[in-house]
Amino acid sequence: MPERERHVFEQFEHLRAVQEELEVIVQPPLHRRGAERTRGENVVWEEARDLLAGPPRVVNVGLEQFGEALRRQDAPVVHVDWRPPAGGDPRLVELLTRLTYARDREGDGQASVGGRVDEANRIAVRRLLDSRPVLVDVQPAGDALPGMAPNLVLHAGPPIAWEAMCALQRGAVAVGAVYEGLARDPEEAGRLVARGAIRLAPCHAHGAVGPMTGIITASMPVLVIENRGADNRAYATINEGMGKVLRFGATQPEVIERLRWMRDDLAPALRAAVEDAGGLDLNALIAQALQMGDELHMRNLASTALFVRAIAPHLTAALRHEGDRLDRVMRFLTRNNDQFFLNLAMGAAKAAADAAHGVPGSSLVTAMARNGVELGLRVSGLGDRWFTAPADLAQGLYFPGYGADDACRDIGDSAIMETVGLGGMAMAAAPAIVPFLGIADVGEALHRDELARELTMAEHEAFLIPALGGRGTPTGIDVRKVVESGGEPLINTAIAHRDPGVGQIGAGVARAPHAAFVAALEALAATLTPV
Amino acid sequence: MPERERHVFEQFEHLRAVQEELEVIVQPPLHRRGAERTRGENVVWEEARDLLAGPPRVVNVGLEQFGEALRRQDAPVVHVDWRPPAGGDPRLVELLTRLTYARDREGDGQASVGGRVDEANRIAVRRLLDSRPVLVDVQPAGDALPGMAPNLVLHAGPPIAWEAMCALQRGAVAVGAVYEGLARDPEEAGRLVARGAIRLAPCHAHGAVGPMTGIITASMPVLVIENRGADNRAYATINEGMGKVLRFGATQPEVIERLRWMRDDLAPALRAAVEDAGGLDLNALIAQALQMGDELHMRNLASTALFVRAIAPHLTAALRHEGDRLDRVMRFLTRNNDQFFLNLAMGAAKAAADAAHGVPGSSLVTAMARNGVELGLRVSGLGDRWFTAPADLAQGLYFPGYGADDACRDIGDSAIMETVGLGGMAMAAAPAIVPFLGIADVGEALHRDELARELTMAEHEAFLIPALGGRGTPTGIDVRKVVESGGEPLINTAIAHRDPGVGQIGAGVARAPHAAFVAALEALAATLTPV
Repeated sequence: MPERERHVFEQFEHLRAVQEELEVIVQPPLHRRGAERTRGENVVWEEARDLLAGPPRVVNVGLEQFGEALRRQDAPVVHVDWRPPAGGDPRLVELLTRLTYARDREGDGQASVGGRVDEANRIAVRRLLDSRPVLVDVQPAGDALPGMAPNLVLHAGPPIAWEAMCALQRGAVAVGAVYEGLARDPEEAGRLVARGAIRLAPCHAHGAVGPMTGIITASMPVLVIENRGADNRAYATINEGMGKVLRFGATQPEVIERLRWMRDDLAPALRAAVEDAGGLDLNALIAQALQMGDELHMRNLASTALFVRAIAPHLTAALRHEGDRLDRVMRFLTRNNDQFFLNLAMGAAKAAADAAHGVPGSSLVTAMARNGVELGLRVSGLGDRWFTAPADLAQGLYFPGYGADDACRDIGDSAIMETVGLGGMAMAAAPAIVPFLGIADVGEALHRDELARELTMAEHEAFLIPALGGRGTPTGIDVRKVVESGGEPLINTAIAHRDPGVGQIGAGVARAPHAAFVAALEALAATLTPV
Repeated sequence: MPERERHVFEQFEHLRAVQEELEVIVQPPLHRRGAERTRGENVVWEEARDLLAGPPRVVNVGLEQFGEALRRQDAPVVHVDWRPPAGGDPRLVELLTRLTYARDREGDGQASVGGRVDEANRIAVRRLLDSRPVLVDVQPAGDALPGMAPNLVLHAGPPIAWEAMCALQRGAVAVGAVYEGLARDPEEAGRLVARGAIRLAPCHAHGAVGPMTGIITASMPVLVIENRGADNRAYATINEGMGKVLRFGATQPEVIERLRWMRDDLAPALRAAVEDAGGLDLNALIAQALQMGDELHMRNLASTALFVRAIAPHLTAALRHEGDRLDRVMRFLTRNNDQFFLNLAMGAAKAAADAAHGVPGSSLVTAMARNGVELGLRVSGLGDRWFTAPADLAQGLYFPGYGADDACRDIGDSAIMETVGLGGMAMAAAPAIVPFLGIADVGEALHRDELARELTMAEHEAFLIPALGGRGTPTGIDVRKVVESGGEPLINTAIAHRDPGVGQIGAGVARAPHAAFVAALEALAATLTPV
């Protein structure tokens, strides 16, 4: 091979997706190149040769400045936005190589490790997409949640010790314990937690999810969501509405008053209505809401209105002889409660993600959750382990009088929405909240859609984006793709004040920290290709 | 002036909006050029000279084929999509010239006629945009509508004699008369109408609008919409839902049964709820629904859900001791009734359009309405006259088993939506119904938005389109612009079977016929510039 051609071959080994006319530049993902490698290097070589056959031109790979210099000399330059995989970190490149297209070490003709991960992911993503979540009941958490106990307070995010918790979540745990009758006041609750008489656990460990602080205690009603595409169930709290609410760490007496009303008046009414309806198909509502500008995390205006329309005739049927109660329930559902559906969407997402969990070898992310200190991941092929890294401080817009110094770090189980291809993953569906989240413009939202597709394995088959001509949302985060691309999933989120008692102070976008994905990749490599 | 430059001057007199690099081609509307003309022709001349100053290039004006031939010879060609105004019809060009920038004939320094029309339009469009329609009551048409009478049957579209009516509308008039108790059966109703014992009139003549056949009789309940931006009121029927309904010319007994139930059970309940609410701001709901994929004519999914959410707590408050009735009403509002809000939107649009009506000299269209035979226009400066032309046959998609041969021509008062910048004018807001209306794709919907802007005077200040970065919908059709451009407003519409008793057979897009606008232009010219 002549020296000049060899040089070009080396340059273009990583660039097989470059279009004929070099108009469209695509960074070819490492795991996709694996397949061609196994067909022999001739494929790559022939492409490099074809590139030499055309008229002379300069292709600039990597730093744009070099190309700029040539362009100033009127040389025809095409800039290729190529970055080395995994930031060029040799250890990560080696791990990725083993998990994408490394052949079986024994050379006995078995599928490559990469092929096995791909196959496991295919199964896991299929289960994610096949989920059919139906709201089937409303029950006390103590009756519904597997492993729930009277002295247990569940919280959002990965596991965390009482001492390590952020002030906001400590405050919410204490108020939850008082609501539950486990302590007379928050101070006593703190002492009881500290000595283990009140126990803590993540919602996720009990099949449940809760937004922001995510507190669940045994007597709290939860939405029971059955995945009829598999046979699992998931659970979520009922949204408390706006104002002084436990999920934002409010501590005022009205917080507990409202929770009691929800338990005694609202929950039985919803339960009767859901029974009258024979269950409510949540994906149908989610799919419609995406056509109506919701991304289902920070905008649930359409989904909430559709839910109210769907449940209203069953409420009036079930409560036809309880007019006053019906009136209270309807007011609660329709007034100052635009995010009511979020918790239903979270339960639906948890049901889908849990169905996809537990496929050996799969690198699919099945949970992202934050506790205000750390974000934790769960991965389908890695059991109950959490992979954590410090939680991000969201970038966004603050209510007047507040700023980043006041903010609690990223918190809540609601990143389950991004885990299943909604929220930040579906930003292209929700132009109305672009300014509200501090995103530059609709173009930036569309750009985020493209970035999300670099991190994911599939396009959702039911969650479609009208602005993209009905293309499915990017769904199914692959730990390998996140590490390889150097990107981070973006999570749409509310921002809470760091201190208990204040509440929401803004909204924005948080990054799921890259380090958590690196930790998960290392664990997956250790499991699949022990050295 | 050298011959070559003079030639270019003449060519480019009409093309002052051509961009510097000729990348963006804009057909400059005649009425906008008027202003520059009054500043002297130097402006135009300087631009033509600037065009000559650059490097040599060929500019092809008009037929693209000429440019194509040059392009094949590798000459650098920029095609200018220029069409002569009003199709080059000298009579229309003369009329347009008089109504756009003709100076006052007396030369006494008064504003030009074109300037007076512009000023009248500015006032009329301001009134259109300032409308604040509020649902304030639900009353029997006989009590609410000005000039309503017991033996009067109102219908959609411009005035039309019984004998000239299409079969569908005749059938609906007859069923309406039977419902009202004016006749024992449709045959008798026909005889009574024919001899004048039952009278006919357009809904529009009584401040009202009705979709499709648009039948209103005295005992029918109507939505009372108060424009709090002015002090006028408008009225619309209550949407009957889907299935066998009077608006689609159904004749089955269940049609009248449902109308009676709406009168006796539904209307009083809605009235009580609206009273409990203290009125319902309709523009707020419309503006939100546009952010949620509705264009408010053929898609009212979001608006209906938002309306249900808004009215539900007032229904439960008003009917807390009438559980069974509440249940019936809620089921009606929430089941198989995705277009319920259309009639509210029509009433809101009528209230806005009527406020803008009656400005002397204004060329603003204040109504487009169809009776299945003709489409009629009303124009702000032309009083109660209708300007008509044969109604279009909508292009669209038919339900299985039906085709264009079965279709009734374009029918209904619902084109009031397009009159105020919604429906077909807001197509860019409603990607979800693009396929449903037989439109090629979302790109075509965006193209229709551009065409609509050539026909309109303003961008709505409250009706914003997220896909266009929050740009307002094209609002306020100018008779002059329609005639000048040669275009036709596009109306999103349901398609009814031509025979009574069948109902809806499809959906699509109808054109408001150009000839009606020409007739209106001629009348305006006769009023303003008598020769």
